[in-house]
Amino acid sequence: MEKTTIKELYIRKENYLNKKIKVNGWVRTVRASKNFGFIELNDGTYFANLQVVYDENLANFKEVSKLVTGSAIRVTGELVESPGAKQPFELKAESLEIEGHSAPDYPLQKKRHTFEFLRTIAHLRPRTNTFSAVFRVRSTAAYAIHKFFQERGFVYVHTPIITGSDAEGAGEMFRVTTLGFDKMPRDDRGNVDFTRDFFGKETNLTVSGQLEAEAYALAFGNVYTFGPTFRAENSNTPRHAAEFWMIEPEMAFADLQDDMDLAEDMLKYIISYVLKNAPLEMQFFNSFIDKGLLERLENVVNADFGHITYTEAIEILKNSGEQFEYPVEWGHDLQTEHERYITEKHFKKPVFVTDYPKEIKAFYMRMNDDGKTVAAMDLLAPGVGEIIGGSQREERLEHLGKRMDEQGLNKEEYWWYLDLRKYGGTRHAGFGLGFERLIMYLTGMTNIRDVICFPRTPKNAEF
Amino acid sequence: MEKTTIKELYIRKENYLNKKIKVNGWVRTVRASKNFGFIELNDGTYFANLQVVYDENLANFKEVSKLVTGSAIRVTGELVESPGAKQPFELKAESLEIEGHSAPDYPLQKKRHTFEFLRTIAHLRPRTNTFSAVFRVRSTAAYAIHKFFQERGFVYVHTPIITGSDAEGAGEMFRVTTLGFDKMPRDDRGNVDFTRDFFGKETNLTVSGQLEAEAYALAFGNVYTFGPTFRAENSNTPRHAAEFWMIEPEMAFADLQDDMDLAEDMLKYIISYVLKNAPLEMQFFNSFIDKGLLERLENVVNADFGHITYTEAIEILKNSGEQFEYPVEWGHDLQTEHERYITEKHFKKPVFVTDYPKEIKAFYMRMNDDGKTVAAMDLLAPGVGEIIGGSQREERLEHLGKRMDEQGLNKEEYWWYLDLRKYGGTRHAGFGLGFERLIMYLTGMTNIRDVICFPRTPKNAEF
Repeated sequence: MEKTTIKELYIRKENYLNKKIKVNGWVRTVRASKNFGFIELNDGTYFANLQVVYDENLANFKEVSKLVTGSAIRVTGELVESPGAKQPFELKAESLEIEGHSAPDYPLQKKRHTFEFLRTIAHLRPRTNTFSAVFRVRSTAAYAIHKFFQERGFVYVHTPIITGSDAEGAGEMFRVTTLGFDKMPRDDRGNVDFTRDFFGKETNLTVSGQLEAEAYALAFGNVYTFGPTFRAENSNTPRHAAEFWMIEPEMAFADLQDDMDLAEDMLKYIISYVLKNAPLEMQFFNSFIDKGLLERLENVVNADFGHITYTEAIEILKNSGEQFEYPVEWGHDLQTEHERYITEKHFKKPVFVTDYPKEIKAFYMRMNDDGKTVAAMDLLAPGVGEIIGGSQREERLEHLGKRMDEQGLNKEEYWWYLDLRKYGGTRHAGFGLGFERLIMYLTGMTNIRDVICFPRTPKNAEF
Repeated sequence: MEKTTIKELYIRKENYLNKKIKVNGWVRTVRASKNFGFIELNDGTYFANLQVVYDENLANFKEVSKLVTGSAIRVTGELVESPGAKQPFELKAESLEIEGHSAPDYPLQKKRHTFEFLRTIAHLRPRTNTFSAVFRVRSTAAYAIHKFFQERGFVYVHTPIITGSDAEGAGEMFRVTTLGFDKMPRDDRGNVDFTRDFFGKETNLTVSGQLEAEAYALAFGNVYTFGPTFRAENSNTPRHAAEFWMIEPEMAFADLQDDMDLAEDMLKYIISYVLKNAPLEMQFFNSFIDKGLLERLENVVNADFGHITYTEAIEILKNSGEQFEYPVEWGHDLQTEHERYITEKHFKKPVFVTDYPKEIKAFYMRMNDDGKTVAAMDLLAPGVGEIIGGSQREERLEHLGKRMDEQGLNKEEYWWYLDLRKYGGTRHAGFGLGFERLIMYLTGMTNIRDVICFPRTPKNAEF
């Protein structure tokens, strides 16, 4: 007999009811009476458990009654309608083999554990309801992203992880090296001799694949990246991790409006896909993690996103009558409190803020005709603030060179990036979506450590 | 008028023929006569070009006639059936705007360039036929992999890139650090003080996500990884890169046979998907890169893969009458020449070789009852040799501990990995597929540098 999964039983119940089936899984709880007992079994394929009923007819009845949480078992028996109201069916065990016992000190007992504690057993926490839901949603959302872009003809590009350049001066970088630390090779002048490092020069972990993605957009038209990126900032906050995944689409022959249209379509697509394909998990988050979650997400799917310029946003904030911790002034970056006011109180829906002062944005963003602002866009969403940041890129070689000079960048290092403007450059635009921020937004989880399988943060690279 | 893509025109020709359309793209060639001209236009969405016909009625006729290869243009006009036999239709330009000129020193001229030269302009090479085909196939194959696993309920897991442990002693690792190289912090005994490094200890780039994937398989049942991995070996060969992507599925309640079934199904799925979804590219490879490619791939899809043990493989090789460079002896690893003999000459189809001597395999592979071999499998494929390597994992705590002791591994570092055997351990199995090796196999390209967008190899981290 072929084994089946608990997911199969739930979604195609009619194929299995009153038939003999075989399942595997891990024991969540055992309630043993003198002559019979119940096991809540989970096999990881579905959020819900399967109730297994067993009695003295089992050859190993006594041993089964002593099973502890976490044990792995294989069960054969008939799937029947359940007399209990809590589940649609139950499995009447005819034989039950114990595949792997669990030790009595199994850390995941029935009581509620704190997320802090569960982080110390990151290898076991996906066996809990919360983290099973988080990481299934993570997988589902990742697939939704690939599906969205591939169905629209975007080419998936693996931009390099190890890089010789600093993509945007965006942050502190991790160095990658094979040099021996005990005795650094030095040149004549006593400086560390990087020509003897693996790549023959200083290399770091990437902070963004955008610049390389631009090269591919100017060949394929539409491309996207989806890969890990890194920041070495010593930020011990609930929203920062040293290692996180990012999605960066890039489109040739596209302007800022096309960019915003893509971002809006993508976000709506991902949310809809996850709501449809992980409904039990999303209901769980709505009930136990974040009460307004489903309503908020459904609003996002149904809303037309707002559009204002940065300059208009400053006016709205100044006229709001709110007391903000950080001052509101043209030329300063918007803080999370400002972003949340605009999206949660003023618009009550996601809003694109565009055309930021050039001084607070990266060198590659396209200069507007006013000479003061650039064609940037940030998408602000209720409950979280900025979730996407993008821009139309500067395609004019002379403007780009000027901006690089202003910011003190070495143009020789960017020779190939400048080439893209020299040989058939086009308007082009793209954005970055932090994948973990997205998962926090989708699940209501408030600490980035709880949406990454094995998080990397300052002083922490366990597992 | 909405712009359309050249792909759209080819796959839904009937919707556009004899209608006015608008397209963007880059000029591949211009053939200008006195009163008219032809432009081969490519927009990156499709392998084939669109022929644009223009004449003196264009306001900027003279300028258009001077366009050079690589220029970016926007064209509006009527799509009509082509009198020429080389293309099904052509675009009669009514207006043609020049979006971005290309400089006359554009390195991609019509002549044939060597792959070596094209590696030096990796930012432009996706604009050539060969690399456009390679990287579209790469994207298509990546999506096929996600689709295959997601449709079967496998959960996608992002295992960590930065790691504190060496997954299998598999190879040299890159160190990741934020320590200042000029003045290393040292402890009382003069050793480098890693407690002052970003993570408070020594960290490296991962060589495999398998161990972490095992933790997730024992929660979700079936999982897979798809992410970058790293090797710091100083190997300057056509088959080695320092940074490459790997797919590592892992299944709980599964043995070596299940593992081989999955590998066979997956490989056939990927090949079929790519043949169906990138047919022009695959024909191109078959015509210009590797004459027998399509036949070989179709054979793989239709064959039942062979199965032999390592011990049987040694017998076959000994009895082959072939002169091998490396000796054939039980206990030694199979070399590529041996693998290719078995798969190309003896079986003439893909073959799983199983049950290798424990001495030449990793500590986590399950010990067979003979006490000499482990439940490992390598899939050998004609034209390439080993393409997949996997095993059933040792789920028995005492056996695993013994193997780790034998190989001198520090069990304390692997506390969480051992926990997986302590708390409801199950039979489980998985494998690794090197993504670049797969792309080489699918395309016939023979140098790994030509299937990675921006390859990282010893002394090379350009772009």
